[in-house]
Amino acid sequence: VIDSLRATSTMLTAFENGCAGFIPVATIEEARELAATLKDPNFLLGGERGARALEGFQVGNSPRDYSSEKVKGKVVIMTTTNGTRALVAARRAGEVFIGAFLNLSAVCRRLEKSGRDVIIACSGEKNLFCLEDFVCGGAMIACLTGAGSSLVMTDAARAAKILYEHFSPDICAMLEGSEWGQYLEGVGLGKDVRICAQVDCSDLVPVYRDGKVFLDR
Amino acid sequence: VIDSLRATSTMLTAFENGCAGFIPVATIEEARELAATLKDPNFLLGGERGARALEGFQVGNSPRDYSSEKVKGKVVIMTTTNGTRALVAARRAGEVFIGAFLNLSAVCRRLEKSGRDVIIACSGEKNLFCLEDFVCGGAMIACLTGAGSSLVMTDAARAAKILYEHFSPDICAMLEGSEWGQYLEGVGLGKDVRICAQVDCSDLVPVYRDGKVFLDR
Repeated sequence: VIDSLRATSTMLTAFENGCAGFIPVATIEEARELAATLKDPNFLLGGERGARALEGFQVGNSPRDYSSEKVKGKVVIMTTTNGTRALVAARRAGEVFIGAFLNLSAVCRRLEKSGRDVIIACSGEKNLFCLEDFVCGGAMIACLTGAGSSLVMTDAARAAKILYEHFSPDICAMLEGSEWGQYLEGVGLGKDVRICAQVDCSDLVPVYRDGKVFLDR
Repeated sequence: VIDSLRATSTMLTAFENGCAGFIPVATIEEARELAATLKDPNFLLGGERGARALEGFQVGNSPRDYSSEKVKGKVVIMTTTNGTRALVAARRAGEVFIGAFLNLSAVCRRLEKSGRDVIIACSGEKNLFCLEDFVCGGAMIACLTGAGSSLVMTDAARAAKILYEHFSPDICAMLEGSEWGQYLEGVGLGKDVRICAQVDCSDLVPVYRDGKVFLDR
């Protein structure tokens, strides 16, 4: 599952900083209720709506919120506009991995090791085409279909790979030029876009299982 | 609305051969009922399911079925797997045009003349990504966004344009290599695929209005 701007990139940053895990939930109310039930300082509320922070939430959906001071050893109850929905939609797959430009090669190694069929779920927005996640998926496809691969590509996979090859010389420019990237820039979050463009800065591949995102190493 | 393999390409071929119009309907039953009600030899039953002919229908969904001997002056009650659904979904637009590789430049001239916002509806199959219609849409976008154009592209439009540019040296190979193109080839309809690859062989731009497809010149 990819939500490169920003949910899955933010999760990867959090794990790099020692975060213990995420519990993705669909609504703000669900997040608040779960936090109220748990009453545990090791659980934080995180998330956004339309890239805006939520009242009473300790962290948003910016990778810059997830410093080790804030998230080391903590579990984040997370609600975002699209990433959460994509994870829930993917839950019946044999294994679900968290992907972004940040862990591109690591997630591909993990997918190759699994030996399974691969479905790349691009979160997007309102069921619309999402350039940055399609291109990120295309990068994974380019990586997975190299010499010796027995994977067969769908039309969508072929298209994503071609688009990745088009944009690969400057992934950051692609992210900045995408509709959502421009929106984030417009609300002062351009720095986040550039953080999300750091290809292969992480070797972590969090899994989504039984309603939680965590590192199963 | 584009359903390049094959509904909109077939319609264009039919109009080139003097067909008077189409009445797209969703189901086979609807088509039969309408034909039974009209009891008029000027109305033909046309269409397919999964590229197969339908019992009691005079014409299928192959451009080769629509010779002037068969369709000149006739109205075809048409039911196809995806094209019909896309037309119905588009019905609230200010104007709806029938597009395919066959009338690429003509439909772009018509869209430019309209001065409206443009939505290119790719029929696809089962809500899945459809390479041939996305690339055909990309060809229209490349044509519409040339010098002097004030159109702004969505992410999807930019992606479609890039894919068109990738495949433009050989549209026929793209169609033949697409999932649906390969399916058609497999059931002996490869000749249709090559007919649908004839860029700009028609200057006709049929409209869809009040439930009918016709030439409003």
